[in-house]
Amino acid sequence: MAEPDTARFLADLHALRQIGQFKTGVHRPTYTPQDMESRRWLMERMREVGLEPEMDGLGNVLGKHPGAGPKLLVGSHIETQNEAGWLDGALGVVAGLALARAGMAVDVVAFADEEAHYGSFLGSRSMVGEVTEAEIDAARHNMDGKPLRQALREAGLEGLPRMRLDPARYKGFLELHIEQGTQLEQAGLRSGVVTGIFGIRYFKITAVGQQDHTGGTTMAERKDANVAAMRVLAMIDEQFPMHVGERTVWTCGRVVLEPNAPHIIAGRAELIFQFRDLSEAVLDRLETLLTRIVQEVDRRDRCALSLERLGRSAPAIADPALHGALCEAATRHANGQWQPMPSGAIHDAQHVAKIMPMAMLFTPSIGGISHHWAEDTKEEDLVLSLRILADAAEKALAS
Amino acid sequence: MAEPDTARFLADLHALRQIGQFKTGVHRPTYTPQDMESRRWLMERMREVGLEPEMDGLGNVLGKHPGAGPKLLVGSHIETQNEAGWLDGALGVVAGLALARAGMAVDVVAFADEEAHYGSFLGSRSMVGEVTEAEIDAARHNMDGKPLRQALREAGLEGLPRMRLDPARYKGFLELHIEQGTQLEQAGLRSGVVTGIFGIRYFKITAVGQQDHTGGTTMAERKDANVAAMRVLAMIDEQFPMHVGERTVWTCGRVVLEPNAPHIIAGRAELIFQFRDLSEAVLDRLETLLTRIVQEVDRRDRCALSLERLGRSAPAIADPALHGALCEAATRHANGQWQPMPSGAIHDAQHVAKIMPMAMLFTPSIGGISHHWAEDTKEEDLVLSLRILADAAEKALAS
Repeated sequence: MAEPDTARFLADLHALRQIGQFKTGVHRPTYTPQDMESRRWLMERMREVGLEPEMDGLGNVLGKHPGAGPKLLVGSHIETQNEAGWLDGALGVVAGLALARAGMAVDVVAFADEEAHYGSFLGSRSMVGEVTEAEIDAARHNMDGKPLRQALREAGLEGLPRMRLDPARYKGFLELHIEQGTQLEQAGLRSGVVTGIFGIRYFKITAVGQQDHTGGTTMAERKDANVAAMRVLAMIDEQFPMHVGERTVWTCGRVVLEPNAPHIIAGRAELIFQFRDLSEAVLDRLETLLTRIVQEVDRRDRCALSLERLGRSAPAIADPALHGALCEAATRHANGQWQPMPSGAIHDAQHVAKIMPMAMLFTPSIGGISHHWAEDTKEEDLVLSLRILADAAEKALAS
Repeated sequence: MAEPDTARFLADLHALRQIGQFKTGVHRPTYTPQDMESRRWLMERMREVGLEPEMDGLGNVLGKHPGAGPKLLVGSHIETQNEAGWLDGALGVVAGLALARAGMAVDVVAFADEEAHYGSFLGSRSMVGEVTEAEIDAARHNMDGKPLRQALREAGLEGLPRMRLDPARYKGFLELHIEQGTQLEQAGLRSGVVTGIFGIRYFKITAVGQQDHTGGTTMAERKDANVAAMRVLAMIDEQFPMHVGERTVWTCGRVVLEPNAPHIIAGRAELIFQFRDLSEAVLDRLETLLTRIVQEVDRRDRCALSLERLGRSAPAIADPALHGALCEAATRHANGQWQPMPSGAIHDAQHVAKIMPMAMLFTPSIGGISHHWAEDTKEEDLVLSLRILADAAEKALAS
């Protein structure tokens, strides 16, 4: 059985934590000097463990194993949200280094900008061939509006070619990541083997009524957009539980009324509503149900209701063989202390899954804290996650 | 039967419309030069019709009839919302002038700041003894924050005493006002005799949950404040119709979620909810029901719900004799073309009603437009409203 150097693994994580340190976390937004320093640090570590590192025109770092034969791709991302946690994506990249150091046939990857400072999964989507030059031309920083091209120039990346992953080179992709939730902690478990990454569909539901005085307008006359919108949400609340899958989640996180004044009947209401599941069939069924609910309120209510799909992402199902290898390894190292679970959050792995088999492993987040400098995981759980990953990788490479 | 000079009445309304003219409406916010010019114009007209006018330290204008015996008080307000309609309160004040001109024993009043640029019914509340000097000290303009004291000084009102209405002097108060709604127009009617002015109770309903990721948090784990708030509104939507009065209105015009972001479960939701009715018993019953609904959602839901009453105003019921006089007059002048109706909007009359009998008459608003320069009423309806008012006033004075 593979025996990775867990002490060195932890030492590497703590070394990387020094770059852009903020309180007990780190601040390494994409293409900042701290981020670029961490990428150079990573390339040095890759050379140390015998990989051949390369950085591409978007800052993706790929360390290639020099040997012949099929490889596994292992990694995640190392830039962070602002003033965020030390583990997050860094955990999966440093775990890849540890596997390479143990002599396994792995390439290690750090995808750029998973944290969406400039775009949506720019690095991993570029490496699977989905990002055009025009998208890069148009991309800007999500807060200060700086053009991505300018950021790439300032980071010294301008003119470098972009790398593409060659699916023929790999048996698959493994990503270790923190859970970013409390399911493991609340269940008293130490590890989660990801069954797949939720697909998302999100929608704008609009109700158009008539803005009026709350005193002078009788109930029979009024067209209250907030009432119509609330009736849609009430029907979702009542009917969705009968049609969802076991792990489906659905949320209205945003409500905008016009004029949103205490003494004025709302003339317009907009809801942003989303649902997530591993099954396209469930997502399709719920979209049909949602459409019917909006149509029914439109028919019954005096307001005009409409539904617009704002976006969707497809579910990414873990490869059965890689997933099975992780489950077996988890049972060997933590029998009774792990569970299979879907990922509600999105990850680079869902894009890599478009071109090769994919599986993911979760390690618990203390208190579920994520994207905050206080994010942390028990050291013993970090070590356990590396052992499970290494064991599964060895099995996958041997198969 | 009293026969007021309707041509002169219309001419006065059009003359007043010239002061602060804005498009087809007027702009006479409280204590602006245009407002003060209109008050001086009013005092001149009062002298012309034989009244003895006086302006007080808040800009209230009262024109007293010099004769002996009981009087009626007739009036409304003449300042306006910004860029607002030419009739609104001016109609009721100029109608009072017309009654005095016809020789009737009426005092005419223009209450200051009904439109709440500086306070809540400052003028009428002061004249019934409800406004303290401390309230005046603290009051500021609702937009630019200018202290009321400064505005009074600039308007030349500083140091003038405040007037109090003497209830022993009056048989009651009559206010003619535009409807500010579409009930008369939609029913094809030309006049409305007000049964009373709705009381209002308004509340803040707060749901406190847990802000979380919409993907990583299972339905069983989450505490979604928006869902809890929506359940309160759904129960109101279901249960209120079984407990309200015939004309009760109820509204949630304002919803504030935190953080109100598409991909984050709301950690907090605040609703502003109000209901209005003529009956204190109905208002009490609905407040009990609302309290139970919020308590029930608090018990059933994982969020913490709370209810805070932000404010209340008592209903003001029209005096039966004065109301009856208006109904008889409306039947004489517009048989089959009028209706009794409550006022959903608030008026000076509700404060005057605290110290003397009160009744109100509504004339239709074309398209229900109010607080906008396009506000208007058909000339024939204006004339009709004056004839009904004069007829009722004559009857009331003779009784």
